[in-house]
Amino acid sequence: MIFGAILAGGTGQRMKNDSLPKQFLELCGKPIIIHTLEKFWTCTRFDAVYLGIHKDWIDYMLDLIRRFLPDQKDQIIVVCGGEDRNSTLFNVIDRVEKDHGVSEEHIIVTHDAVRPFVTLRMIEENIDAAVKYGAADTVIPAVDTIICSNDGKTIASVLDRRQLYQVQTPQSFQISLLKNLYGTLSEEERGLLTDACSICTVRNQPVHLVEGSDTNIKITTPGDLKIAQAMMEAGA
Amino acid sequence: MIFGAILAGGTGQRMKNDSLPKQFLELCGKPIIIHTLEKFWTCTRFDAVYLGIHKDWIDYMLDLIRRFLPDQKDQIIVVCGGEDRNSTLFNVIDRVEKDHGVSEEHIIVTHDAVRPFVTLRMIEENIDAAVKYGAADTVIPAVDTIICSNDGKTIASVLDRRQLYQVQTPQSFQISLLKNLYGTLSEEERGLLTDACSICTVRNQPVHLVEGSDTNIKITTPGDLKIAQAMMEAGA
Repeated sequence: MIFGAILAGGTGQRMKNDSLPKQFLELCGKPIIIHTLEKFWTCTRFDAVYLGIHKDWIDYMLDLIRRFLPDQKDQIIVVCGGEDRNSTLFNVIDRVEKDHGVSEEHIIVTHDAVRPFVTLRMIEENIDAAVKYGAADTVIPAVDTIICSNDGKTIASVLDRRQLYQVQTPQSFQISLLKNLYGTLSEEERGLLTDACSICTVRNQPVHLVEGSDTNIKITTPGDLKIAQAMMEAGA
Repeated sequence: MIFGAILAGGTGQRMKNDSLPKQFLELCGKPIIIHTLEKFWTCTRFDAVYLGIHKDWIDYMLDLIRRFLPDQKDQIIVVCGGEDRNSTLFNVIDRVEKDHGVSEEHIIVTHDAVRPFVTLRMIEENIDAAVKYGAADTVIPAVDTIICSNDGKTIASVLDRRQLYQVQTPQSFQISLLKNLYGTLSEEERGLLTDACSICTVRNQPVHLVEGSDTNIKITTPGDLKIAQAMMEAGA
């Protein structure tokens, strides 16, 4: 079976907004997370979509689903988020397996709640790649020159940009594969590998690349919100 | 002596604008390159500011200077750009040395014409670092997770983001140091090292880091132009 997992465990300190976490801010009259959910809903291959939500905002989210997506409310399951991104993800996985049992065929397509410009093409290619290869990551070629500094004071090396990519989401996995790999990590590794694809690569599990887009932006600052508004008004 | 070098050698194909290169597009009623020049003008330590401009646009640029910066027109020198960024930079350096002679004390602060949100603090710290260490680069900590792929199909490694920085400008150099290092490069290396800081690092010349800002954006797409407009209206 194929599951969506939209991750919104955070409370959005970077937005400088005292009340609403960024995923709930409105774009063209609708909360960002609803736009994101609607994009997932354009893909007909999901058996259910799970939302990892910070515990303080679960009731608020349930209310949004009733208001904006009443027809889908039985296929959208809200799960309590964890301390960090990976624990939110594994809370969702636990709930998937509680609802649908353990199977090597279960695929999970994880996505940032604050990336509402994801496309159906990216979602479909994530599913296909996760089915075929076990793990997939959505990326774009690095835009800026990237340097490495060991001390934060001088450049150690200028990296070869032709081999570098910026990570977006979705990131998609065979659930059993990801769980098995996570089970082999030490506590220290779990703290360091905050990106789920890292869990694969440190254990030599290939992660297939899916082509993202520079429009698939992550809305984390007030400036991002402005550009997202302009993009949405322009029909992105 | 201390010189500015604002680089605008390109003709801006990424902007999808048939007529005007991006550095000439207007933000709040003034061309982007004029905003950038005005930022340089807030620093009183420059003996002159050079502009590297594509040959087709030199007359246009001279006209803009007469219109927007009539009082500074004798201290702003327009130089013909080259085939690529480095050749534009070395065209400027040749002109500096023609105008002011060769000296180990000459410092050049290079900057993208399409980064009008550079601050006086960044410019001052660039000058100080170039005087003290010979070379300086303006950077911000990497925002996205960065992965490396050798084949463009699967992830080879997820890089440790804590050591990665995205390069902005200004980039600043002791002119004699940069020229000497460039003189040691092979033709092939010159083709590969499109970032002037790379010229230093491949020859083990330390490049000191100056703290940039996420507002110091490079305007290269229509989306960037929209966000720049919003930022400028908000007083950035």
